[in-house]
This record gives sequence, C-alpha cells and structure tokens, in this order.
Amino acid sequence: MLESKTSTGCGAESGLISIDQALSLILEKTQRLAVESIALNTALNRYLADDIFSEIQLPLFSQSAVDGYALNSVDNIDSHTHFSLIGEIRAGQNAELTLQAGQAVRIFTGAPIPKGTTTVARQEIVQIINNECIEITEILTAHVDIRDEGEEVTVGQLLAEKGQRLSIGAIALLSMAGVQRVSVYQYPKVAVVITGDEVAKSIEDFQSGKIFDANGPLIQAWFQQQNQSIDIFHIEDNAQTVKSLLHDLSQKYDFILTTGGVSVGDYDFIRPVALDLGFQQIFWKVKQKPGKPMLFAELKREDLSFCYLLGLPGNPAAVYVGMQIYMQTVLNVLQGHAYFPNSFKAELTHSLKVDARERILRMRVGFDQATLKVGSLSKQQSHMLSNLMQANCLVRIPAGKSLNEGDVVQGFLIT
Amino acid sequence: MLESKTSTGCGAESGLISIDQALSLILEKTQRLAVESIALNTALNRYLADDIFSEIQLPLFSQSAVDGYALNSVDNIDSHTHFSLIGEIRAGQNAELTLQAGQAVRIFTGAPIPKGTTTVARQEIVQIINNECIEITEILTAHVDIRDEGEEVTVGQLLAEKGQRLSIGAIALLSMAGVQRVSVYQYPKVAVVITGDEVAKSIEDFQSGKIFDANGPLIQAWFQQQNQSIDIFHIEDNAQTVKSLLHDLSQKYDFILTTGGVSVGDYDFIRPVALDLGFQQIFWKVKQKPGKPMLFAELKREDLSFCYLLGLPGNPAAVYVGMQIYMQTVLNVLQGHAYFPNSFKAELTHSLKVDARERILRMRVGFDQATLKVGSLSKQQSHMLSNLMQANCLVRIPAGKSLNEGDVVQGFLIT
Repeated sequence: MLESKTSTGCGAESGLISIDQALSLILEKTQRLAVESIALNTALNRYLADDIFSEIQLPLFSQSAVDGYALNSVDNIDSHTHFSLIGEIRAGQNAELTLQAGQAVRIFTGAPIPKGTTTVARQEIVQIINNECIEITEILTAHVDIRDEGEEVTVGQLLAEKGQRLSIGAIALLSMAGVQRVSVYQYPKVAVVITGDEVAKSIEDFQSGKIFDANGPLIQAWFQQQNQSIDIFHIEDNAQTVKSLLHDLSQKYDFILTTGGVSVGDYDFIRPVALDLGFQQIFWKVKQKPGKPMLFAELKREDLSFCYLLGLPGNPAAVYVGMQIYMQTVLNVLQGHAYFPNSFKAELTHSLKVDARERILRMRVGFDQATLKVGSLSKQQSHMLSNLMQANCLVRIPAGKSLNEGDVVQGFLIT
Repeated sequence: MLESKTSTGCGAESGLISIDQALSLILEKTQRLAVESIALNTALNRYLADDIFSEIQLPLFSQSAVDGYALNSVDNIDSHTHFSLIGEIRAGQNAELTLQAGQAVRIFTGAPIPKGTTTVARQEIVQIINNECIEITEILTAHVDIRDEGEEVTVGQLLAEKGQRLSIGAIALLSMAGVQRVSVYQYPKVAVVITGDEVAKSIEDFQSGKIFDANGPLIQAWFQQQNQSIDIFHIEDNAQTVKSLLHDLSQKYDFILTTGGVSVGDYDFIRPVALDLGFQQIFWKVKQKPGKPMLFAELKREDLSFCYLLGLPGNPAAVYVGMQIYMQTVLNVLQGHAYFPNSFKAELTHSLKVDARERILRMRVGFDQATLKVGSLSKQQSHMLSNLMQANCLVRIPAGKSLNEGDVVQGFLIT
C-alpha cells in the first residue's frame, strides 16, 4: 500500500513567495530593539550595540614568557656566561628593581620583567652555581621569551565591532582587556502560543482524538539552547479566546510565536484575529515544504514600539524548520544582526525528484576528505519527527528542479 | 624587532604523550556517573542511560493530512461525483460516526478519520452543493491525504538509544510519543579553581604587576553555553591554601578544573598538592601547543566514587583549547558518551612550518563549493586571545610535519 502515503494537500499555489523572499522581508521590516548596558558575564551570545576600543594595552606590561631568569647583557650570551643573581620576581608582583649589566633576577611566567632586562633565559638552560650566581648553559640571543607590552593590543585598538556576537572567546578577550560592562541589543520578550483542540495539555487530559504536544517542548528546548526563557500558553481553537489572549500578549511582549491555526481552515483563527487586532501582514504563505501556511505580521503600538507575530503551522516538522530558519532570523534582526547563521554547502549523495515547492529536508552530513556530502533520511513528512534522532542538518532543495548525485546544495547544521 | 617574538620555552621534551594518547587515557580511565531519572523538559543535551521504546504508535490514530472531506467510495472517484454530507470532525474530537458508501464528513488536519473512510478530498477540490451534499471536482484515488496510524512509529519500536544526546529534535520526538521522564547520566558537579597571584579578583584589587582574569569568565561562559552552572574559586599560589581548598572540593565535587600552577615552577602547587591528597596521576604534560603542562588525575574516595582533576595551564589560549578538547571529552565520558564532538576535515589554504609539538591553531573555515578550506589567523601565542573574534574553528596541525597548501587537516567548530 505504498500509494497510501500520497499527500496532495499542498501544491505550489500561484503568488506564494519564496523562502529567500520571506527572509528578505524579515530583514527589511523588523526593527531592532533598544540598547541596554549589561554586565559582561551575563552577555554570552548577545550582540554588541557599539564598537569596543581597548582602554588598556595587552600585555599590560612586558613580562616573562617562561619560568627562568631575566638577564642584562650587552651582547648575545655565550654558553658558560655567569650572571650575579640579585633577586626574584613572582607573577603578580611589581618589578621594582633595575638590572645592571651582568645581573640576573629569578622570574616566573607572567611576571613583569625589571628595567634593564635584555633577554630571558628559561630555567632549563640555567645552572645554579650558588645563591648569588648562575651560569647560562646555551648560547642565548637578545630579547628571547619576553612578551612585550602592547604586542597584542594597543590602547585605543578596536577589540570588538558593533553587531558582533559575544562568543565564549569574545567574553574571554574582553575580560582580559578589563571590560566589565557592554552595550548590547535587548533580547526580545517572547510569548509562545500553542493552539489546537487536539493538543493534550497533560497526561490526565489525554483522550481519544487528542495527541501529545511536541511543539511546546520543542520550542521550549530551542530557547533553552539559547539560554533564554519564554512564556508558553496553550489555547483552544476558539476565536474569542485567541483574540483575547493575542490582544493581551501584544501589549506585553516584543514577539508572539504561534503554532497551528494559521491556514485557511474553518478553525484557523490566528490570521483573522491578528489582522482584526491591528497587526499588519508582512507575508502569509511561503512556497516551502514543510511549513507553507506561515504568517509574519507586525503591530505598531501606541508608544511606537512594535510587537511581531510569527505564525507557524501546527505540524511539528514545520515548527522545527520554522524555528531554525525564521525564528532564528527574526531573533538575529531584533538584535541588530542581519545574518543567517550556520550555512554550509555540500554534495548530494543521491538524486532528488522535482517538487513544486522548495523543500527543507532533514539530512545527515559527513565528510569525504574535505568535501561535505549530504544524504536524505526517510520520514520527511510534516507530521513526523523521528528522523531528527539521526539528522544533523537541514538542507534546502530548490523548487522546480530535479537534482543529481554530486549537485551542490546549501544547508545548515542543527544541534 | 621581529626576533623579539622568539619563544624558546617549550620544545618537545622526550616522553610526552600525544593529544590522541591523552584523549584515549581519558576515555579509558574516566568512570561514568550514576543514572538519574529526570523530567524530559529538563533533559536538553543530557545523555540517555537506557534505550527508549515507544509505548504508543505514531500517528496515534489514522487522521486527515488536510482540511477537507473524508469519503467512503467503493472505487476511485470520478470528477463530479456527489457525496452526502453527514457531519463534521474537528481535530481533537473523537470520530464516533461510521461512513457508509456515498457518504462524506467534513474533516480537518489531524482529526481522526471515521470508520469507513476510503480516501480524503482536500477542500480545494470540493464544491459545496448544499448543507447535505458535496461534489468532488477532480479525479481522486483511494487512500489519499490520510496519515495512517503507526506509519511512523509502531508500539515497541526503538525511539532513542542509550548514550544518545537529547537534542531539541529528540526532546520533541519523545514528547510526541508521550514520554514524560527519562533516565540520563548525572551531570557532574564541577568546581573551578583559578590560581595565580597575578590575577586581579576585581577592579579594586587591580595594581601594577597584576592582570585582569580571562580564565574565570571564559570557563563560566563555556558552561553557560552548556546550560550548566559551576562554582568558581580564586586562590593565590600558596601550597597550604591550595591544599586546603583542593581537599575540601575533592570531597564535594565530581570534577575539579584548575587553571595555572600546573608546570614545574617554584610556585606551581597543583600537581604536588593533588598527589599529596591521594590523587593518582593519569597523565601530565601533553606534546601540544598551547597547553603542554596539563594534568589529569583521579581520586578514589572512601565511598568508591571518584573525583577527577583536570589541571590546565594559566595561559588563556591554553585554557580555551583545553576546554574545547579535554573538558568536553571528560564531560562526555562522565555522561556515558565516548565521543569527541564536532570534528571536520578541511584543506589548508597555505603552507605551515614544522613544529615539534602538535599545534591547535585558531583558524577560519569557509567554503569553496562543497570543499571546506581553513586558513590560520595571526596572534596564536598562548597569552593571546584577540583572534578569537575572527576564529570559527580550532585545527589540529600534526607534530613534526610541514604542511602544504591543499593538505587535509582535522578541526572542530567553535561557537
């Protein structure tokens, strides 16, 4: 009964926009949020609202790169040269003494070198004669194993640019440069509305005809991955309930994400209610599979700020793809970052039949030497999720084209 | 003064182990933690301790894939065929009626199809004649737009395997299958010890000879990225202080991560103190750059449980690389997952000189069609971090080999 899997539901209606057109509209229409100043140690993965210039040089002071001896010598140093030992400088101490010719000081990695230092001998090439004298056992040139002040960063140098994401490495660098607070774009306050009479809210609520909710947990996990919290609301397919909730949320949140109720069925209330509440439609329906009936709309509030609404269909695969592509893009733009993350190119390991809509397929990507190869997984229908246990990427298959093995496609990694 | 950047400090001492040997020792020696049962919605990125078999079939019941009409017809349906309309089934409702030949019921996406249904007509090909009669406007075959019960998952089917990470997609699938709790390996309780008299603990504490701490913020951000919290302790290079703290932590935490004080300098107390406290050394010093003086040790406690200690050097680049390679691997193994994540292969865009130690270089990876290409960044020294603003990967450059443009190297993405 192979033909039982036939789905005719959604061909390519005329007039639908493409994925790229939808993404362009998001970039064009979405206003970024206000700027706030926050502590650097709470700023992971936020986006900078200003360039950051260094207030200090790095290294802050010239320092030893090794455990050894700082030396003052007029020339390069021959093997067997003796130096008189006049003291010790540990990391964290101030270098208050000054070396004269022929003098040495015990020094440790990261400790400031004293005035008069011409080079540093690592301890492996130093023999201690007595408490007051050391011998260098190898030929040593000038200015070895010294980290010069300012050799990495000078005062006033650009450390990080406006729009840049504060990665782990960025947090570490800015910390090292003494930065304590940063100006970043606000992260939106997000409300999530899961619609559908078929969604069981709990095990107790479960009964024939209902299903367990995949979309709420999926969306919650997606924001957890981003270290962000959201508020989730489950509601029935009832126009008045939807209207009252959306009205309320649109005044309190920067962003409303909905699942389900966004197509043209008799009980699809999201779009008519949103329009009724004053939302302006930016786009509705995208020529893609899964996820065709998708709505993006904006509400300009009395204080001239905006609330955006992304209405995803109710099928969980459409929600998954919608989050990865559209939600991520909207979040980026709200935070001043007009960039679609994580894209790769790869060769198909098999041919693919033509489809009227652009498809986003769950695939597995791997390596053949330095060449990326992707292969499709079974169970791609929009109500199915089980192949996400194997999938490590989503791949865009262009509309109206059959593809051959070896053709290059674009995709992005999923985690 | 180009020669001023010379660093002689660390050649390849004989007897050091390689990165692969160090990773193998971690996999071999680290015992996984105990198993705990937790709510699925708190289990993102944890590792399953058991296989999970589905207790339900998916779809749970045969349902419509579209908004349309469920029909009972003995044959394929010709255009202009009429059906008598006997009711409506919404998503979430029970399908209590039974269709007889020639009968139709209004139905919506996800609603259970009633007994007797032979196919579903999407609403786009249906004309409503009156309240009791509809006409099909296109030829329609049997069993179209029906999602069959169990077509994705059967009762008892393996949904997820022991050892598998609970990704966003996995959480969504398990939710859809009605799974509420999962058995996972415990996440270790981690204490982080930042050593070094040179580390300013605060702006107020800042004075000549000291530096701003990059390692604490780096490690904190790294665990934030994993949605995990840690406890951080800053201590001075004093044997008694180090001993007292490590003793205390080794009884309370599964894992102690230290930075600094792990080499052979006069004030490097981590290793002698750990050994003194009963830790067994698994390895010390790895033939790598950055991060040669690295310690991995274990303490078997009275209750036969283990505390592990990973001692990283104090240089921030060594800490960054150590976290990405070693800390990640230890965390994986502690959670029953013997897998080193995120590896890619790429072609070098330039030649590289030989080095006695394996190097881990901060690089930028990009695409030439489906082929990954990586190029090195400047400022690779172990006390420098600024190239992490551009880097998107770490690449392993084998020891003792010069490489040419086009040679294939292995690396992993950083975020």
